[in-house]
Amino acid sequence: MMEKVSIGWQKQRNKLNIQGEIEKAISEITGEQIDLIASGRTDAGVHSLGQTANFHTNSNIPIEKFALAINSKLKLSIRIKKAEEVDERFHSRYSVKSKKYRYTINNQETASAIFRNIEYHFPVKLDIQKMKIAAKFFEGEHDFKAFKASGTSSKSSIRIIYKAEVISDNGRIYIELTGNGFLYNMVRIIAGTLLDVGIGKINPEDIKSILESKERKRAGKTLPAQGLCLVEVMY
Amino acid sequence: MMEKVSIGWQKQRNKLNIQGEIEKAISEITGEQIDLIASGRTDAGVHSLGQTANFHTNSNIPIEKFALAINSKLKLSIRIKKAEEVDERFHSRYSVKSKKYRYTINNQETASAIFRNIEYHFPVKLDIQKMKIAAKFFEGEHDFKAFKASGTSSKSSIRIIYKAEVISDNGRIYIELTGNGFLYNMVRIIAGTLLDVGIGKINPEDIKSILESKERKRAGKTLPAQGLCLVEVMY
Repeated sequence: MMEKVSIGWQKQRNKLNIQGEIEKAISEITGEQIDLIASGRTDAGVHSLGQTANFHTNSNIPIEKFALAINSKLKLSIRIKKAEEVDERFHSRYSVKSKKYRYTINNQETASAIFRNIEYHFPVKLDIQKMKIAAKFFEGEHDFKAFKASGTSSKSSIRIIYKAEVISDNGRIYIELTGNGFLYNMVRIIAGTLLDVGIGKINPEDIKSILESKERKRAGKTLPAQGLCLVEVMY
Repeated sequence: MMEKVSIGWQKQRNKLNIQGEIEKAISEITGEQIDLIASGRTDAGVHSLGQTANFHTNSNIPIEKFALAINSKLKLSIRIKKAEEVDERFHSRYSVKSKKYRYTINNQETASAIFRNIEYHFPVKLDIQKMKIAAKFFEGEHDFKAFKASGTSSKSSIRIIYKAEVISDNGRIYIELTGNGFLYNMVRIIAGTLLDVGIGKINPEDIKSILESKERKRAGKTLPAQGLCLVEVMY
């Protein structure tokens, strides 16, 4: 389980990426070539508090020392929180049961200097009660075609959202979604749509017809990456 | 009232500083030369959620537009939260009644990638109960000579701490001090001393004799700047 700051997961030529940094760190301590498999990609600007990844190794380093050892080779913007041995058949992506994402909106009048890179500042007053009601319409199994980045392909856009919550705390609003999988930009588009509910542009019950329409243009805007955080991956 | 990230307050030749940045921003919108007086200096690495400063202006910009206008000229690591008109005799430093500081210790096993610049990571298990008891010994009027950076001069090292609290929340420990004034490095040294209590190096009741000794070397280490935050200045 690892925590990272606003660097994309996937390897890209000449670009800083989490996967490459961690593979390099593990290679340094094990002397092996490492292929890291994550629970999924996260885009540049998106944070993680609980990303997971697996790799194969013949190293003799005791498992309880692994996190510490890898961290000693990593830059401070990436931290391994825990390492554990898993079954040979375990696969960080295919074995995922559910994932939890959080989108953070700073709803105070002024943006925060300190937290500006981990939240989206939106100073207009929001109707939290309506946003809470709207969130419930996302729960269950739906075709989320209207809530994925247009132009991206994926076999099916049907996903299950187990829990969709809007939490208000001290001027900040947290949109927390737990589901069996998420389409590209899906959380950021859902957050943008809930924002439209919050400002009264659409009604909570409109979510139902937007889902049914399967039309991207009927949903809200894709909110910026920095407000998004992968909180937990469950197996 | 303003929020800033880890940049020193005071002007220094060729160095980024909060005072200079804000003076420049206000000058740009008012066309005047601005002398900003803050509630006090903060060192590089120390954060503020509630620093205050005053200045004189003949500008016609309505007061309720001032914060927004200054923010439009400032880099995102400095945000003005509020501007208000005050009495001619008001002085940001001399009129201060009390200040509240918070020192944040991340007491989890692994450092945080996301919050690494606003907290001090200390993975050793701490006895919070003892730290809470120890904190109470700082409350009241004392000579805090043992708790100021050695070699720094100030007329008197007598200060009143109105409230000293140790709060534990989800693997993080917050040391919160409210007082009529603080000596150079005083909060960071108190935090370091409470850490010594937490690991059992000294007992809570030792605080009393350390205060009485007035010897810097008997108190704990000065914890790093990044864990410190000026939370509020009260008038």
